[in-house]
Amino acid sequence: MTPDAIRALLEEVAQGRRTPDAALLALKELPFQDLGFAKVDHHRALRLGVPEVIFGQGKAPDHLAAIARAIVDRGHDLLVTRVDAAQAEAVLAAVPAAHHEPRARTITLRREARPTPPDPVLVVAAGTSDLPVAEEARVTAEACGSRVETLYDVGVAGIHRLLAHTQVLRRAGVVVVVAGMEGALPSVVGGLIDRPVIAVPTSVGYGAAFGGLAALLGMLNSCAPGLTVVNIDNGFGAGYAAARINALGLTR
Amino acid sequence: MTPDAIRALLEEVAQGRRTPDAALLALKELPFQDLGFAKVDHHRALRLGVPEVIFGQGKAPDHLAAIARAIVDRGHDLLVTRVDAAQAEAVLAAVPAAHHEPRARTITLRREARPTPPDPVLVVAAGTSDLPVAEEARVTAEACGSRVETLYDVGVAGIHRLLAHTQVLRRAGVVVVVAGMEGALPSVVGGLIDRPVIAVPTSVGYGAAFGGLAALLGMLNSCAPGLTVVNIDNGFGAGYAAARINALGLTR
Amino acid sequence: MTPDAIRALLEEVAQGRRTPDAALLALKELPFQDLGFAKVDHHRALRLGVPEVIFGQGKAPDHLAAIARAIVDRGHDLLVTRVDAAQAEAVLAAVPAAHHEPRARTITLRREARPTPPDPVLVVAAGTSDLPVAEEARVTAEACGSRVETLYDVGVAGIHRLLAHTQVLRRAGVVVVVAGMEGALPSVVGGLIDRPVIAVPTSVGYGAAFGGLAALLGMLNSCAPGLTVVNIDNGFGAGYAAARINALGLTR
Amino acid sequence: MTPDAIRALLEEVAQGRRTPDAALLALKELPFQDLGFAKVDHHRALRLGVPEVIFGQGKAPDHLAAIARAIVDRGHDLLVTRVDAAQAEAVLAAVPAAHHEPRARTITLRREARPTPPDPVLVVAAGTSDLPVAEEARVTAEACGSRVETLYDVGVAGIHRLLAHTQVLRRAGVVVVVAGMEGALPSVVGGLIDRPVIAVPTSVGYGAAFGGLAALLGMLNSCAPGLTVVNIDNGFGAGYAAARINALGLTR
Amino acid sequence: MTPDAIRALLEEVAQGRRTPDAALLALKELPFQDLGFAKVDHHRALRLGVPEVIFGQGKAPDHLAAIARAIVDRGHDLLVTRVDAAQAEAVLAAVPAAHHEPRARTITLRREARPTPPDPVLVVAAGTSDLPVAEEARVTAEACGSRVETLYDVGVAGIHRLLAHTQVLRRAGVVVVVAGMEGALPSVVGGLIDRPVIAVPTSVGYGAAFGGLAALLGMLNSCAPGLTVVNIDNGFGAGYAAARINALGLTR
Amino acid sequence: MTPDAIRALLEEVAQGRRTPDAALLALKELPFQDLGFAKVDHHRALRLGVPEVIFGQGKAPDHLAAIARAIVDRGHDLLVTRVDAAQAEAVLAAVPAAHHEPRARTITLRREARPTPPDPVLVVAAGTSDLPVAEEARVTAEACGSRVETLYDVGVAGIHRLLAHTQVLRRAGVVVVVAGMEGALPSVVGGLIDRPVIAVPTSVGYGAAFGGLAALLGMLNSCAPGLTVVNIDNGFGAGYAAARINALGLTR
Amino acid sequence: MTPDAIRALLEEVAQGRRTPDAALLALKELPFQDLGFAKVDHHRALRLGVPEVIFGQGKAPDHLAAIARAIVDRGHDLLVTRVDAAQAEAVLAAVPAAHHEPRARTITLRREARPTPPDPVLVVAAGTSDLPVAEEARVTAEACGSRVETLYDVGVAGIHRLLAHTQVLRRAGVVVVVAGMEGALPSVVGGLIDRPVIAVPTSVGYGAAFGGLAALLGMLNSCAPGLTVVNIDNGFGAGYAAARINALGLTR
Amino acid sequence: MTPDAIRALLEEVAQGRRTPDAALLALKELPFQDLGFAKVDHHRALRLGVPEVIFGQGKAPDHLAAIARAIVDRGHDLLVTRVDAAQAEAVLAAVPAAHHEPRARTITLRREARPTPPDPVLVVAAGTSDLPVAEEARVTAEACGSRVETLYDVGVAGIHRLLAHTQVLRRAGVVVVVAGMEGALPSVVGGLIDRPVIAVPTSVGYGAAFGGLAALLGMLNSCAPGLTVVNIDNGFGAGYAAARINALGLTR
Repeated sequence: MTPDAIRALLEEVAQGRRTPDAALLALKELPFQDLGFAKVDHHRALRLGVPEVIFGQGKAPDHLAAIARAIVDRGHDLLVTRVDAAQAEAVLAAVPAAHHEPRARTITLRREARPTPPDPVLVVAAGTSDLPVAEEARVTAEACGSRVETLYDVGVAGIHRLLAHTQVLRRAGVVVVVAGMEGALPSVVGGLIDRPVIAVPTSVGYGAAFGGLAALLGMLNSCAPGLTVVNIDNGFGAGYAAARINALGLTR
Repeated sequence: MTPDAIRALLEEVAQGRRTPDAALLALKELPFQDLGFAKVDHHRALRLGVPEVIFGQGKAPDHLAAIARAIVDRGHDLLVTRVDAAQAEAVLAAVPAAHHEPRARTITLRREARPTPPDPVLVVAAGTSDLPVAEEARVTAEACGSRVETLYDVGVAGIHRLLAHTQVLRRAGVVVVVAGMEGALPSVVGGLIDRPVIAVPTSVGYGAAFGGLAALLGMLNSCAPGLTVVNIDNGFGAGYAAARINALGLTR
Repeated sequence: MTPDAIRALLEEVAQGRRTPDAALLALKELPFQDLGFAKVDHHRALRLGVPEVIFGQGKAPDHLAAIARAIVDRGHDLLVTRVDAAQAEAVLAAVPAAHHEPRARTITLRREARPTPPDPVLVVAAGTSDLPVAEEARVTAEACGSRVETLYDVGVAGIHRLLAHTQVLRRAGVVVVVAGMEGALPSVVGGLIDRPVIAVPTSVGYGAAFGGLAALLGMLNSCAPGLTVVNIDNGFGAGYAAARINALGLTR
Repeated sequence: MTPDAIRALLEEVAQGRRTPDAALLALKELPFQDLGFAKVDHHRALRLGVPEVIFGQGKAPDHLAAIARAIVDRGHDLLVTRVDAAQAEAVLAAVPAAHHEPRARTITLRREARPTPPDPVLVVAAGTSDLPVAEEARVTAEACGSRVETLYDVGVAGIHRLLAHTQVLRRAGVVVVVAGMEGALPSVVGGLIDRPVIAVPTSVGYGAAFGGLAALLGMLNSCAPGLTVVNIDNGFGAGYAAARINALGLTR
Repeated sequence: MTPDAIRALLEEVAQGRRTPDAALLALKELPFQDLGFAKVDHHRALRLGVPEVIFGQGKAPDHLAAIARAIVDRGHDLLVTRVDAAQAEAVLAAVPAAHHEPRARTITLRREARPTPPDPVLVVAAGTSDLPVAEEARVTAEACGSRVETLYDVGVAGIHRLLAHTQVLRRAGVVVVVAGMEGALPSVVGGLIDRPVIAVPTSVGYGAAFGGLAALLGMLNSCAPGLTVVNIDNGFGAGYAAARINALGLTR
Repeated sequence: MTPDAIRALLEEVAQGRRTPDAALLALKELPFQDLGFAKVDHHRALRLGVPEVIFGQGKAPDHLAAIARAIVDRGHDLLVTRVDAAQAEAVLAAVPAAHHEPRARTITLRREARPTPPDPVLVVAAGTSDLPVAEEARVTAEACGSRVETLYDVGVAGIHRLLAHTQVLRRAGVVVVVAGMEGALPSVVGGLIDRPVIAVPTSVGYGAAFGGLAALLGMLNSCAPGLTVVNIDNGFGAGYAAARINALGLTR
Repeated sequence: MTPDAIRALLEEVAQGRRTPDAALLALKELPFQDLGFAKVDHHRALRLGVPEVIFGQGKAPDHLAAIARAIVDRGHDLLVTRVDAAQAEAVLAAVPAAHHEPRARTITLRREARPTPPDPVLVVAAGTSDLPVAEEARVTAEACGSRVETLYDVGVAGIHRLLAHTQVLRRAGVVVVVAGMEGALPSVVGGLIDRPVIAVPTSVGYGAAFGGLAALLGMLNSCAPGLTVVNIDNGFGAGYAAARINALGLTR
Repeated sequence: MTPDAIRALLEEVAQGRRTPDAALLALKELPFQDLGFAKVDHHRALRLGVPEVIFGQGKAPDHLAAIARAIVDRGHDLLVTRVDAAQAEAVLAAVPAAHHEPRARTITLRREARPTPPDPVLVVAAGTSDLPVAEEARVTAEACGSRVETLYDVGVAGIHRLLAHTQVLRRAGVVVVVAGMEGALPSVVGGLIDRPVIAVPTSVGYGAAFGGLAALLGMLNSCAPGLTVVNIDNGFGAGYAAARINALGLTR
């Protein structure tokens, strides 16, 4: 039941065509989201520029293409994550205007203009193997309306490479730091700046890296205050959170 | 070597009293932080209203009191976390103007006026056993300059208690959600609002709660996008991060 | 907003004192639980005879006594779990009519008559160290309205002790099986009967028992189909679930 | 030794052809199941409508087909779980009357009429990736004699989708809730209804989901009382337990 | 129902006072252990010299003393494990003839003569901190009828100390090897001899010893074939198994 | 340096061709195994009938065949474990007289006659998926000189199937019990007999079976005294240990 | 900004073409590594003979070949680790002078002469399956300038094989010990010599080896003092550390 | 059998009083350490200045004092680790010349002069809570003959504090880096210098620090090559290894 349907119901009561008790009965069974939540969701999408998101991994290419097409047909912006080559081919055939970034494993389509927060989101990555996750964060934050800058290949074992870019670090509104292995980079970054830092552990490593557990635990125990953490390899979640945080800087 | 010392060195070169090569040698050994980092740290404290923080747990009461006194004597704001009754007594004897909140296990002293972000930080807690951690988050966010509202005892097994307060949820700039046991509350809160959500797992529970591990894993795997997570029982970290994020809403 | 309040609102619309648009706005903010959820909760308590439950562990004796007293004053049945001697003394002083069972670590007060399901709940325990958990399950299931029988000290290493009581096993409506160490007893019981079996791992054991983890994993991997499991040492949860299941046998 | 053999032995004693002592010796060595257990098993199958179950995973297609054929030839109902396409083809060639459900990965054959419990089992699933497990639970509960309803794609991050279906939740006799990632859905469902709830964690997720461990721990630590849990991805076990519980509602 | 009762029943059939069918009915409900299992247990105790065993840890001193007294009054040998000083005092007051070994944390009473296996059990321990577990194994194996030799403080980091005693190693029938920390000693011993080796991990160590987990995993993965392992700190289990194995050497 | 070389050295001393000091120097550098250990190893092989063992898994077929051939050429008995079809083909081509058992994944060649211990080793297995491990244990124990009996498909959920074979259980000298999932079978078997029991956890199962961890922990925490455990899926180790234990029954 | 650029800046100040304040401003923004760190890195490479290292695993063959070629073109020594056959073919096509060692999975190119530390690095390995990791350590230590000796297939279950080579052990400057399964070998080696020992756990094993965790924990808990440990399968890290340690023996 | 005894034996052969065969027999049973190993151990102690070490934790004060006294009476240097106040008092009463360092929890006595390696060992610690472990490393390295410098309170979240001391870092022969929480400091240090780095994780932290596991995993997965790791809180092991490594710099 849409807000329009509720208004129609109330009109009937106002016009005496339905008694208050009958209307009460109808309202009690009202699915919750019809009380306006969907509209709120819509408002949110407009303000934040949040696209509809599909987690591509494991979905059949044609199924994925059909979902993507349906979203675009409803006029929404699109973000598909974790797509491989075969999935990308199918989606692009269905939505030719969409954009595929192989390294980020994403497909996006953005058509609406929206206000952009004043500061960029900065995505920092420790090693080249962390780039797919970092790029997923970058594409997601952009799809959610923020400008994004990147600073890649600045691991802690060569700390001077990071320190050479402190100005880039300081002009960011929010910083996403992506690192595998021991996951120490967010601690160092968190000690250099006073803006929010989101740490993303990756599954890069072997042996006692235990699929990203070492990096995850390292980040959760960071001695840099104010750091928050997302799941292993969750570039999407970090980019989404970064854009949501960065949007607090928009004039209200 | 301070910036003044560097300027003095350069003056010597300008006046011909030191050759460029001798100056180059001196500069190569220059400690990094003397290039102005310490001053930057100072600027940050002024703008964000970040107090100096002491982790009280395990420190001897007289030692703790001495550190607290030294901070206050330097004119800084003070935040001591994880203090027990004996520690609190000692600190208050040394810093009579400070304020002790037993439930939050904190001692604070704040003297400087600072700009306050427009929206409040909201701290949500699932059960009464989670309150020490929630209160630590509240006191920390306040000490870092934000107004804080609270919404306690709204666990997911009685979801209507949470849903009755959606207006409180929506007016917050940032939401901190504290929960032990299965740690499901942040997922539900994250699905209701479009502002940043910081999840804090607590060690509340027994058996397969494994000291907060169940709640931590639950939050890291949340299906609500945009959620970020801090360490188990880390109310301080969540409050600090929330204030840092909330400060993005200040006019610049 | 209660159903009565909604009806009043609709009456205003019917009488032309409020426009449909104004009513729509009011309805959008309607707290969910006012649509009748609280009343449903009340109905549930009446029908199932579920008492109000307090988890005693870690609560101050006087605080616990005050909560217990408030529940009893509202006319509800009472169940306090995980109480020690000092807590029990305080609660009994506040609620003299209540009943303390030290081995089960519970305090109960039951005053209302209710229908009792036709079959008993049976609580089976492997060793004497498992009895506190088994007794917590027994007291809880009784407080929730079921008759309970018990079969204690029938570990799998002396399987004939269990087999000697197959008749007791077979007349139960639901069986709760409590075991620590390797947690094998529920599998054996589950193979002997065709009624629902709830397995409760306990933290009894040492070394590689890892605080009940060995028993928990054993029960989750049982080759006896139809077994379900609760948290380590969670006698309360098992007794509560057993009574809820057993109530399906009540005439409707 | 069958009951008939025991009777023959006793006849010999009655007729003086065997002394009591000789009979005692023979009886001492009596295999246990010959005391009637097998018959009891048979009775159980008739009353509950429990089919014979084969866990298909890892079995050679022709081997699986032969077992299935043997069961059907004995006149029993059949349930094969975890079958892939090649296995299904082999089984259907051997048992053409059987029914293959690819999404549930099951093959069933049911021929006998049995009493059906009055209320349905309800299977709830959080996300589309959880459907294979949910469908396995559905098919199993049906094969064990219950009617089943389903409520899919109602994750906690969009809690209003679940709340819109409270009437479906409340008319169920037993509810099976299937969820991966953080596994929070059973807690929310458990707080809305007063019937037994069986939680099934799935291995859906990545990173710190650790193959379903996060969901499993979440469910074991649920703050909703009365919840019980089965192994990760164990749709079969949940459906079987649900049917067994639901059968308590049959008139006796 | 005892064998005597069964004989009585059969007599009634022989005498025509009970029909075979009525007797069949009675026999079907026969508790299993009444078919002679208890007697078998008795035979076993006589042949192997197995005492009745009480796990003392956590039991109240007076309760423990009462159980010990009852066992002795039935004429059985006694073995109490994991006793502390207060428990020992209480048991010795109740059973003055018993023997307390503080380092092994055991109390024993043995009165019957039995055949002793020809070879000794050898208990080897890596470090002095492993001695309580090693001594528990020694006392248990002796209480179960074997002669025991010991070889203590022969850790692998000083391998020549072990190699100096190869003759002692080779004359043992069974060897129990007790070690904490990395638990490497059983592998080395297992490579030197051709008799059964039982490895006992201990909780000696700190940090990544994880309460004996490191030693346990080391022993389970030993490259020395024929090694078997018991639970962490389970000196009793190792001594019991060693005596049971060693008894195979008795003339039959 | 062989014993012959040592004797030659001593002869030189006896004949005055080498001084005692020069001989001392040579002896100090003497490799340890030349003092007779190799011969001892040889003696052990003769007495116990232990074959030379190759762990086949991961080895190239031609490499494996070459090793097997070399062993046979030295006149030793052969046992290759964990061989797949391709490896088996290569080994049999090189050693045509060898015997391949596909279910046990073994290749054996035995030519020497040896004394056989009086009692059989009994291998018990819980489910059909456990058979490869059980068969590996059987073949290994036979290759090491024991007669072996088997008792398969007797899981604890149908305990009467096991109880029907107590006579088989009791005539064994040593029992190997193989079980996956919850690993409860060894506890039940251990309670029925008084001979040594070796428990073998298998990786059979899914979800919270964690690759055999659940079964392993269950067996380590067994309430049946005298049980010892080997690594997950280590049928070879169990069979080897069983034969070594069983050999204690040989007349000496 | 290079040292030359800094000198140029200082020259400008000396010549009055730039004021000291303007120079101070430029210096404050100076990237850290330009203060000479890069040169230090260069010096280090010259003295230690450290090549540039590429972790090959997961990199595309053509990408890997391009990186290798670029390094060689800069005149540096090359070390590529974890290369498979396809990668090796591509790299050798691009750098024909390079050397591929399939068992070590490495490609190296070394052209500069450097001082060699007086003592060799010794690499010890427990079993043949540990050889790829051991060889990676050997090639790495050689590429970093040390002579290397090896001692393979000397597991602890046949301790005399190790003891026969004590002279080889004692002439080494540093010893790398590689072992999987229980990882006990480094403890034994550490007890025999007084030089630094680096322990490398490998993922060799199955079941409770948990991918090398058992060996890792064993080595971390070694009772041999002075042992240090690297990550599972990290032959490169061990060889690199060994060469770095061994270089302390160079005359300075 | 001492070398003297062997020489006596050889003399008997030379003098014809014992045949070569009889001598061979005696030699075969020769305990290994009598071939001179004990003397080698003695040589090692002299050259490296390694004291005899007692792990004090858990030992009775009077027992500890007696061991310490015995060591000193043999003329050896003494190092007792992990001593508390009561133990220290007892040991100092027995060995008045010894030196107690409460923060390091050590007691030492050193009397012999030895050569000191040319470079110092540097002990770096991240936070003040890590100091007991760092001090244990310092005292141990000194007791083993190295000069030690320290650099404390230089955590990665304030990276400029560390960078300000690069000269101290570079003059060290070996660096021990002690850190709890995320354990990132060794990676940063390892990237700044070209000498061996030993990383020591500490149990400092809470929640997901899991008693030092997070720091341990971080260090094992460090991206800084050449880092090696010891057990959690093992300051002794790190100091011992550092001194052993540093001794390679002594002139030979």
